[in-house]
Amino acid sequence: MAQNKKFVEEITSMEDDFAQWYTDVVKKAELIAYSSVKGCMIIKPAGYAIWENIQRELDKRFKQTGVENVYMPMFIPESLLQKEKDHVEGFAPEVAWVTHGGLEPLQERMCVRPTSETLFCDFYANEIQSHRDLPKLYNQWCSVVRWEKTTRPFLRSREFLWQEGHTAHATVEEAKERTEQMLNVYADFCEEVLAMPVIRGQKSEKEKFAGAEATYTIEALMHDGKALQSGTSHNFGDGFAKAFGIQYSNKENKLEYVHQTSWGMTTRLIGAIIMVHGDDSGLVLPPRIAPVQTVIIPIQQNKEGVLDKAAEVKNVLSNIRVKVDDSDKSPGWKFSEQEMRGIPTRIEIGPKDIEKNQCVIVRRDTREKIIVSLDEVDVKLEEILTVMQKDMFDRAKAHVEEHTYDASDYEEFKRIVEEKPGFVKAMWCKDQACEDKIKEDTGATSRCMPFRQEQLSDKCVCCGKPAKTLVYWGKAY
Amino acid sequence: MAQNKKFVEEITSMEDDFAQWYTDVVKKAELIAYSSVKGCMIIKPAGYAIWENIQRELDKRFKQTGVENVYMPMFIPESLLQKEKDHVEGFAPEVAWVTHGGLEPLQERMCVRPTSETLFCDFYANEIQSHRDLPKLYNQWCSVVRWEKTTRPFLRSREFLWQEGHTAHATVEEAKERTEQMLNVYADFCEEVLAMPVIRGQKSEKEKFAGAEATYTIEALMHDGKALQSGTSHNFGDGFAKAFGIQYSNKENKLEYVHQTSWGMTTRLIGAIIMVHGDDSGLVLPPRIAPVQTVIIPIQQNKEGVLDKAAEVKNVLSNIRVKVDDSDKSPGWKFSEQEMRGIPTRIEIGPKDIEKNQCVIVRRDTREKIIVSLDEVDVKLEEILTVMQKDMFDRAKAHVEEHTYDASDYEEFKRIVEEKPGFVKAMWCKDQACEDKIKEDTGATSRCMPFRQEQLSDKCVCCGKPAKTLVYWGKAY
Repeated sequence: MAQNKKFVEEITSMEDDFAQWYTDVVKKAELIAYSSVKGCMIIKPAGYAIWENIQRELDKRFKQTGVENVYMPMFIPESLLQKEKDHVEGFAPEVAWVTHGGLEPLQERMCVRPTSETLFCDFYANEIQSHRDLPKLYNQWCSVVRWEKTTRPFLRSREFLWQEGHTAHATVEEAKERTEQMLNVYADFCEEVLAMPVIRGQKSEKEKFAGAEATYTIEALMHDGKALQSGTSHNFGDGFAKAFGIQYSNKENKLEYVHQTSWGMTTRLIGAIIMVHGDDSGLVLPPRIAPVQTVIIPIQQNKEGVLDKAAEVKNVLSNIRVKVDDSDKSPGWKFSEQEMRGIPTRIEIGPKDIEKNQCVIVRRDTREKIIVSLDEVDVKLEEILTVMQKDMFDRAKAHVEEHTYDASDYEEFKRIVEEKPGFVKAMWCKDQACEDKIKEDTGATSRCMPFRQEQLSDKCVCCGKPAKTLVYWGKAY
Repeated sequence: MAQNKKFVEEITSMEDDFAQWYTDVVKKAELIAYSSVKGCMIIKPAGYAIWENIQRELDKRFKQTGVENVYMPMFIPESLLQKEKDHVEGFAPEVAWVTHGGLEPLQERMCVRPTSETLFCDFYANEIQSHRDLPKLYNQWCSVVRWEKTTRPFLRSREFLWQEGHTAHATVEEAKERTEQMLNVYADFCEEVLAMPVIRGQKSEKEKFAGAEATYTIEALMHDGKALQSGTSHNFGDGFAKAFGIQYSNKENKLEYVHQTSWGMTTRLIGAIIMVHGDDSGLVLPPRIAPVQTVIIPIQQNKEGVLDKAAEVKNVLSNIRVKVDDSDKSPGWKFSEQEMRGIPTRIEIGPKDIEKNQCVIVRRDTREKIIVSLDEVDVKLEEILTVMQKDMFDRAKAHVEEHTYDASDYEEFKRIVEEKPGFVKAMWCKDQACEDKIKEDTGATSRCMPFRQEQLSDKCVCCGKPAKTLVYWGKAY
């Protein structure tokens, strides 16, 4: 157990230094490595396998709503990026520019896509002629580049992986419906698969996406009480369509502009999983997203029959993502590794267990030890994983509730932000001056105007003028 | 049927102009669209769905051999690219250079990866310390950029999608074995899934990958008799390891260099499928790779019960990727579309068929019509798809055999290359002068030194000196 202790000691405690704890976990759980390219990370097998599961689950949900995948070029000519005024202003300061192809300078420089609205619009302008060509429901899985000054693994890096959906519709209503539909797909995915409760709402004018009419968001609360924007869905109205000339002839043969949406989720979600569920022993993965759901750890594996029995148990667990750790490390070391990597359960099995036709299942989240007969290990383990998934969601949900506060006046608001990390619910007049003042005074930003509105008061928490909306405020990643 | 004729007439015939036929098919089958980014294409849903199937099939095979997926940055700092001499010479002339991040010039320019050997080596130099860290069997799915002067959809474009495997091993033998293993994975995939026979062999010194000790290749023959390099696997020996200082301590605690491999397949395979199997009505997809394996086309769909029956048949075909085309186009138009898109089979079902409790299955490749009872449509269709897959392979195999010629002297060699498109088998002395002369005289290049050697003669077909190997020669894409 000395080894075990040493292994665990290498992580900083969450309470001591949350940021350092996070960095320790992404490295010790072998999710990433730093690269020679400043601000870009290497996603290692344990990290990438989580992304593959996220992709598979989301992609299935997208396709169920009629979405098809495509692939667009990674470069955007400067003139194309400039076609929509707000959009270029939002992105131009943080793009990477390609100026040379081979040995020659380019006639026009191109940026590496920070997002692909302009490419999709250019494409749609050619593809869409008639109402019969609508809707277009396209998505792509790719990497994008944003030249951030300060970076953190998964949360903010110069290159990250994501999906970006881009749709075009005949009517205002259809576009609005799709924007909401995809936000709900995201929210359901986070809650059902990642066991991560989210607040669904709309961004303020100041926080919305460059070029959008409305941006919807899901906001999650991390263990340290900071908010993380976890997915966004944008309604563009016909703004891009007018800039790019995307028109269709309707049933009366009259030309109309299309209405568009876009929506994206990124590898940032892996950061969210770490910061919602992790503990001082490392990562804790919800069973539904875990690349390995249980690891079988043989005890006294050199004794006759132990490894055979471990292999037998593995074969019985055909519905579960399972691995046997038969390396020559000590069981204690293997336990610590399973904990650090966040594998939801481990199965301990040794000569005494085999004698009794049983094994011990240990839950990663509660460390509860459950003795199970080998005759029903498959059924029992599935039950345990299902319960664990639900318990993890419930605990995260309780954490959000315990860390969500109402503020009715500005003194109270400031005191809460200073003393109690979490969400603060407070009314707002919708004037950006108040939003700016709150940020300057407290560091908190408006996370969203929740779809589920409440009337906490009839006055703006900041200026006291008539309130127009409830807002979730908070410090954010 | 007038409509039908018009639709089909829009494709150039293969015999008239194969290059134009190819371009027509990629556009009319809606595989790609051209973009505003010169030399880069947009992969549309019908094209991307083929790539998704290729990915799924290959990824499964990789993982069965122990490979894990990772993701590396898309940028390579110039100093990193320059670390291996042959490698930088091979790639520097055709990379895209990023010189600015946001509004500021970079201290060191970076290229967009044309391939990631240098990034993986830099990573491995940090990750590998002990023999316990070996082997490393990593792969990534991503896009790469090579600044080509002339481009063609799927075959040669400035950006393309691929996978690149990069492995590190303790011994020479293990690296050699892995290089061969992955080439065989590629070859089996092409033959079993794409119904595309390939020649397995080794590239000449001149044609091998920049920085490799040996490059293995699979070469396929297109319908027009030109060769297409369809996948390569490289053995690097310890060349990169020495350039990047990738060392491990062996069991005797002595430092040794690792031995490395890399191997890749690209969206070029979609071009291969088109040019091996297509015909004058468009694309023909092998059933195992087809995103849609059968389309149900209702006849007189407005008559009562027809659409219901079509839906019923769809539900029965649960093991098959199936769609119903109930759009308001004519059946003839739908038939042409199914043919153009290369959907392997269609099921025609109308009131008369329903009366007789039957439907008509039509094969895309042979156009054979098979009347099938509705009680056994699932079993029969699976049989038909299996037979079709095998027939497509056999026809492609016969095409390769009919277009492979032996040449024993140079006059014969030149005459064959001029008159008979295909592979020419001929002996070679291994002197690059002969390889260069053959290319200059005939336009044919050495495609590979096949693993299955034959002794056609004891003299080099070009210079008459003693022959060292058999070579497949041919004009190539």
